[in-house]
Amino acid sequence: MPVKSDEFARISRFFAPLTEGFAGAFQLTDDAAVIGPIAGRDIVATTDTMVAGVHFIGDERPGLIAAKLLRVNLSDLAAMGATPLAYLLNIALPDSVDDDWVKAFVAGLASDQAAFGITLAGGDSVATPGPPTLTITAFGTIGTGQAIRRRGAQPEDVVYVSGTIGDAAIGLRSLHEEVAGLTPDMRDELIGRYRLPRPRIGLGLRLVGLASAAIDISDGLAADLSHLLAASGVGAEIDASAVPLSDALHAVLDREPDMLTAVLTGGDDYELLFTVAPGYAARIVKIAADLALRLTPIGRIVADRKLTITAANGTELKLARKGWVHGRDGRG
Amino acid sequence: MPVKSDEFARISRFFAPLTEGFAGAFQLTDDAAVIGPIAGRDIVATTDTMVAGVHFIGDERPGLIAAKLLRVNLSDLAAMGATPLAYLLNIALPDSVDDDWVKAFVAGLASDQAAFGITLAGGDSVATPGPPTLTITAFGTIGTGQAIRRRGAQPEDVVYVSGTIGDAAIGLRSLHEEVAGLTPDMRDELIGRYRLPRPRIGLGLRLVGLASAAIDISDGLAADLSHLLAASGVGAEIDASAVPLSDALHAVLDREPDMLTAVLTGGDDYELLFTVAPGYAARIVKIAADLALRLTPIGRIVADRKLTITAANGTELKLARKGWVHGRDGRG
Repeated sequence: MPVKSDEFARISRFFAPLTEGFAGAFQLTDDAAVIGPIAGRDIVATTDTMVAGVHFIGDERPGLIAAKLLRVNLSDLAAMGATPLAYLLNIALPDSVDDDWVKAFVAGLASDQAAFGITLAGGDSVATPGPPTLTITAFGTIGTGQAIRRRGAQPEDVVYVSGTIGDAAIGLRSLHEEVAGLTPDMRDELIGRYRLPRPRIGLGLRLVGLASAAIDISDGLAADLSHLLAASGVGAEIDASAVPLSDALHAVLDREPDMLTAVLTGGDDYELLFTVAPGYAARIVKIAADLALRLTPIGRIVADRKLTITAANGTELKLARKGWVHGRDGRG
Repeated sequence: MPVKSDEFARISRFFAPLTEGFAGAFQLTDDAAVIGPIAGRDIVATTDTMVAGVHFIGDERPGLIAAKLLRVNLSDLAAMGATPLAYLLNIALPDSVDDDWVKAFVAGLASDQAAFGITLAGGDSVATPGPPTLTITAFGTIGTGQAIRRRGAQPEDVVYVSGTIGDAAIGLRSLHEEVAGLTPDMRDELIGRYRLPRPRIGLGLRLVGLASAAIDISDGLAADLSHLLAASGVGAEIDASAVPLSDALHAVLDREPDMLTAVLTGGDDYELLFTVAPGYAARIVKIAADLALRLTPIGRIVADRKLTITAANGTELKLARKGWVHGRDGRG
C-alpha cells in the first residue's frame, strides 16, 4: 500500500535536506526565508508554474518533472545573465501521490541543485483535488543594473541563437505521431530535448555587458524574437536557412520541408536568443569555443518594426499568428 | 458570452498596471524581476498556494480570493517583522474563468496593494484542467539579521497573542452548520474574519528587537505555538481562560463550552503569537494602545519541552493530536 506522510512530515523528511548550505532557509522551520544583501548585486526573481497534463505528461517520471521545472526557471535567470542563488517550491498534490513519488521528485531536485549551484530556501505544500501543480520561484544575483533585458536591441545588431532550434518541438510531436526521417535514436534524442531543457547559465554570464538584449526561447523562436523586438521597439530580418539544426532535424526537414514552421514556432527550446552590436563576432566565436556551444548568427536588427523571415529560396516565410503566440503560457 | 483573452493579453491589460511604481517589474515584459539591494536590509521571502475548494470556497468573490491570498503572505511577513516590498503572482486558471473574473481578482489586489504598500513585480499565468490554483510569493525587507524567528523563546518569557482567537474557525463552521448562540450579525462578522484576514504588519514592525520569537497563527493557536516551542526547544504553560475572545465567541462558548477546542485548534486566525522577556509588559501595553489592537498575555514559556493548556477550572485541556496538526497545509 502506498505510504503517504502528512505535509509536515514530508517537508521535514524530504524537503528540509535540500536547504543544506543556505542558512536563510532556516531548515524550513520558519515563516519565511531570508536573503541577505550582497554588496553590488541585484536580486533577480523569476517564477514558473507547471501543471500535469498541460506542461508535462501526467505519468512522466517525477525526477524529470522536478528537473524540468527547475530548469525552465534557470533558463529565465540565464537570459538575464544572472548567477543562480536559491529557490522556493510550491507543490499542490492530489491524495493519489505517495511518498515514493515525492522521494523521486526530490532526488531530481537534489541532482540539479548540485549541477547548477542553487539551493532550496522555502516553499509551500498543499493538497489539491486537481492535477499536480508545481511552482518554482528562482532567485539569482547580478551586478547592480547589469541584468540583460529584452529591450536594448539596436538596428544593425546581429541576432544570435545558442545550440540548435526545434528539437524539443519535434520531439514532443514524435510522442504523438510518427515523424518521417527519424531513426529511433534520433527520436529519443529529440524527446530528451523536450523532457529536459539545458539552461544556458554559463552563456548568460558571458553575455553580461556584451549582449544588447536577450530572451530565452520557451514559446518558440518567432514568438520570443517578437517579444524582444517589441520590447526594444525595432524589427529584424532573419535568414531561416541560417537557423542552427541538429542532425536529427536536418533528417526530418529533408523529408518534410514544411516542418520548418514547427521548428521556428514550436517552443520549449530553452536556448538563448540574443543581440550583439556588429563588430563583436570574434568575441562570440571565442565564447562559443570556451563553452563548447554553438552560437549562430541568424539575422540582424532593423529600424522598421517588422519581423521578416526569409527562406533559403529567397521567399518570405509567412507564419500564422497562432504559431507565434500560441496562448499556452504568459510570463511576466 | 464570456470574454476570455489569451494569457499575454490578460497580462498586459490586467496585471501590468499593478506593477506601477516598481521599476524592477519592467511592466511584466521581461524574463524576471529585479530587486535592487537596499543598504542594511535583508530580503524576506514567503510563499503560499491556495486551491479552489480547499483553501477557499469555489464560488467566492474573486476580489476576496485575491485579498486573502495576498494577506496570508503578508501575515508571514508580519511574523518576521518585515516591511512589505513586492510580490510575484502565479495563476493557473481553467478555461471557464472569463475576463470579468480576472478583472475582479485584479481589483482585489489593487485595493490591498494600496492598503499594505506592496506592488506586483512579476509572475506566471498558465492554463489548468483542474481548479483555480493561485500562488503569491511576497517579499519584504528588514534590518540585516533582525528578522524575528520562531526560535528564540526563553523560559520565563511571556506568551502573547494579538486580536481575538477562534473567530475565523467558528465563522467557517457556521458556513456549514448552525452554531448556537450567534445572532445573524455575529455570524457575518465571524465569516468575515475567515474570508479576510487582517495581517498584523504594524505590530510585526514594533516587535523587531523586542519579541524573542513570533509566528502567525494559520494552523491554529495550539499547533502554531507548538511549532514555535519546537523551534525554540522549550515548552509553555497556557491559561485557556486568558485567550482573548470576541463578543461573538463569548456568546458561542456560553452555549457550547466544548467549542473551546475548536477555538484553540481551528486556525485561519492570522493573528501574531509572540514571546517577550518578562519586564516588558509596559512596552506591550504602549504598543497595543498605539495600534488600537488587543495584545493579551496568555501564559509563559517553561524549560520543560511540553505544552500545557489549563482550563478555567484548573483541569488540563487535552487536545487531540489531529487538532494540532490537521495536515491541511505545510509551510516552509
